[in-house]
Amino acid sequence: MKLGIITGHVVATRKDEHLIGAKLLIVQPILPDNTPAGQPLIAVDTVGAGIGETIIYAVGSVASRATMHPNAPIDAAIVGIVDSVDCPRAGGL
Amino acid sequence: MKLGIITGHVVATRKDEHLIGAKLLIVQPILPDNTPAGQPLIAVDTVGAGIGETIIYAVGSVASRATMHPNAPIDAAIVGIVDSVDCPRAGGL
Amino acid sequence: MKLGIITGHVVATRKDEHLIGAKLLIVQPILPDNTPAGQPLIAVDTVGAGIGETIIYAVGSVASRATMHPNAPIDAAIVGIVDSVDCPRAGGL
Amino acid sequence: MKLGIITGHVVATRKDEHLIGAKLLIVQPILPDNTPAGQPLIAVDTVGAGIGETIIYAVGSVASRATMHPNAPIDAAIVGIVDSVDCPRAGGL
Amino acid sequence: MKLGIITGHVVATRKDEHLIGAKLLIVQPILPDNTPAGQPLIAVDTVGAGIGETIIYAVGSVASRATMHPNAPIDAAIVGIVDSVDCPRAGGL
Repeated sequence: MKLGIITGHVVATRKDEHLIGAKLLIVQPILPDNTPAGQPLIAVDTVGAGIGETIIYAVGSVASRATMHPNAPIDAAIVGIVDSVDCPRAGGL
Repeated sequence: MKLGIITGHVVATRKDEHLIGAKLLIVQPILPDNTPAGQPLIAVDTVGAGIGETIIYAVGSVASRATMHPNAPIDAAIVGIVDSVDCPRAGGL
Repeated sequence: MKLGIITGHVVATRKDEHLIGAKLLIVQPILPDNTPAGQPLIAVDTVGAGIGETIIYAVGSVASRATMHPNAPIDAAIVGIVDSVDCPRAGGL
Repeated sequence: MKLGIITGHVVATRKDEHLIGAKLLIVQPILPDNTPAGQPLIAVDTVGAGIGETIIYAVGSVASRATMHPNAPIDAAIVGIVDSVDCPRAGGL
Repeated sequence: MKLGIITGHVVATRKDEHLIGAKLLIVQPILPDNTPAGQPLIAVDTVGAGIGETIIYAVGSVASRATMHPNAPIDAAIVGIVDSVDCPRAGGL
């Protein structure tokens, strides 16, 4: 999994039937120190995440398991909302 | 999933039998602000997408689930046509 | 899927039993305008591709579905031979 | 698999039900000579790893197999604690 | 699949039970002309590969199929030992 921040959302009326009702959020991947890291992706929300929140997301075929449609063509899902990040060794490798 | 723009298509007469009839579109990945991001890929269309449209695509083994051949050797599929992208926190991490 | 050009082949006598008889081709990924894009990979041929031909390949667990051994440890397969690439919007995002 | 060092952990109260009880550790990927290599990820611990330890992690759909919830939306897991790395040919390709 | 050279090995006493007995080799990915390409990974040996040998490896969920534990949390496996690489078009795209 990776850390990310919810930066927005996408509206798509015409879509795969298994995506109907899915909340499609834009996630900016971040490092443990909150700096952006790589390109934004679109993930299905499964935990009630909102704009500006720090979240954990999973990618690949396991992502759809977090949704109500485990056989949907979903390759990214938000699976947790982060309360705190503790990274004492980040600068001390 | 990622955002992309349909930039073209590919014709391949000789191909895997599960790809017969599949529309093979060229997708340029983009960021939420429409700038290109990374190299184009070939995705199977499942939602009636056309040249110039902004779409959502999924990659990996889940992609074939969006098509009529869930066991086909397909690793990328267009799963939605984007109506709007709202990204208020993009510049404010 | 991605576009590629067949640039060579690999011979491996000692290998996984499910790879016996598989044609292992070297694929240089390319962009729609034929410029190289990224590092070569080894893909199993399933469509009779030859040196110098432009092809479509799939990666990941779906690749083995294109071969005669759907449970083989194969993560890349050539799934189509390209007749033409039409990319009118490539330069006009 | 890749080598990594445990640099911290993440607390997430609101999360997918299959992640309840999972220890979410921050892993800094490293090279065999211990230099950092790429961006940190969040992996589920399955072997009792602690801060500062060098570990082996697996990514993708196989990661959940290492946990108590093989159908969980987990895409990274720590699968071994490294005793020693012996890399005599690293500099001699 | 990709080409690689075996550069070392890793010892991990505490590990997932499905990895017990697995030979964990360090693989440096290489290009067809033998130059290094990207970061080393840890792959399970299934073909009796040794230090300094050029091999073919597969990654992702298919890798475990090459081992004695097809449901193990293994995301990389050595699936062939290379006898020869013939790449006549490498420089002539």
